[in-house]
Amino acid sequence: MKSKVLNQGPERTIALIFDKGDEVISTLQRFAREHSLTASRFSAIGALERAVLGYFDWERKDYDRLPVDDQVEVLSLNGDIALDGSEPKVHAHAVLGRRDGSCVGGHVLEAFVRPTLEVLLIESPGYLRKTCDRDSGLALIDLSA
Amino acid sequence: MKSKVLNQGPERTIALIFDKGDEVISTLQRFAREHSLTASRFSAIGALERAVLGYFDWERKDYDRLPVDDQVEVLSLNGDIALDGSEPKVHAHAVLGRRDGSCVGGHVLEAFVRPTLEVLLIESPGYLRKTCDRDSGLALIDLSA
Amino acid sequence: MKSKVLNQGPERTIALIFDKGDEVISTLQRFAREHSLTASRFSAIGALERAVLGYFDWERKDYDRLPVDDQVEVLSLNGDIALDGSEPKVHAHAVLGRRDGSCVGGHVLEAFVRPTLEVLLIESPGYLRKTCDRDSGLALIDLSA
Repeated sequence: MKSKVLNQGPERTIALIFDKGDEVISTLQRFAREHSLTASRFSAIGALERAVLGYFDWERKDYDRLPVDDQVEVLSLNGDIALDGSEPKVHAHAVLGRRDGSCVGGHVLEAFVRPTLEVLLIESPGYLRKTCDRDSGLALIDLSA
Repeated sequence: MKSKVLNQGPERTIALIFDKGDEVISTLQRFAREHSLTASRFSAIGALERAVLGYFDWERKDYDRLPVDDQVEVLSLNGDIALDGSEPKVHAHAVLGRRDGSCVGGHVLEAFVRPTLEVLLIESPGYLRKTCDRDSGLALIDLSA
Repeated sequence: MKSKVLNQGPERTIALIFDKGDEVISTLQRFAREHSLTASRFSAIGALERAVLGYFDWERKDYDRLPVDDQVEVLSLNGDIALDGSEPKVHAHAVLGRRDGSCVGGHVLEAFVRPTLEVLLIESPGYLRKTCDRDSGLALIDLSA
């Protein structure tokens, strides 16, 4: 994955271009840590060789894993980055398109790029913080934190 | 729902974090009115307890209602805010993901959050106006208005 | 299609409102050429009368064509514009919603608007360049170019 700042100023727009084989979430997570991102949003299109999506099971309070084992188009991949403690945390949801145009989507647990993923990330100077939500057991963005 | 300005300047980025039970469209509508938004765009991810989507029936010139009664991931929720007369009007489309990863989508009529919805809204200093389109009977953004 | 600058400064936000009958990709392509866009991103919602989507067949190294012949909601349409040689090149992926809420998506080859498509395009002052990727045979964004 390579990155390039497209726009300086109070908000910065950064292009992140992923290569074949790059895993999206761990790579974004590493980028967020290395650049100390405290409040970012991103949107991407491209294609994947395979992925694992998640669906949050409200009863079990955990994610079901939905493996996607075929080459798919990334129709949308939207997300944000907020602080969980002192650590930036990536949160992304995607809709993937199969050969027949049918769609499968979920919370992105893992996604392996082929041949490319074009991410436009906007870094804001503010910050967003996550705290643990008792109801769901998830770390959710909390604007009063 | 809580809100926080992440970026001052000619465009402002505002995080809107919805709580369990919040209805998305009416809450966004109220926020738009209270903050006199004249040209905004937004993108969100999160999850819903239930929703009602719409499909515009071109013959009938009205929306079919598509109830979604299960817990779903918000895979994408994109929209804009423009003036309809002197009133800001929210327009949003969403793709929702079910337990098996299958997708259902449409124009968002109602959407009830559980446990969270993370909206990044960008407020522009310009304005967008809607006028009635004779063909469809809908209020559409008209850049000559 | 009409356009309007909503925000001046280092990045510009431009509203592009498409009319009934406008073809999305060729119109965006012409706009990009006329305004010499070198690094842009966009997001849209609206509705289409018909479209042709693409799925990149990794074996054949070409797009399968997926015609969509019914009136559909544009649930998401995300993309970017980068230079391919000296020419701006539009790349867009979409998720479309049918009457029953089911979704079909892919790389957008053709899309005919009815009644409207509301595109928010952000023009960055930087540039993105495409070069030919040997593996896929596609022109991909290359940040080292």
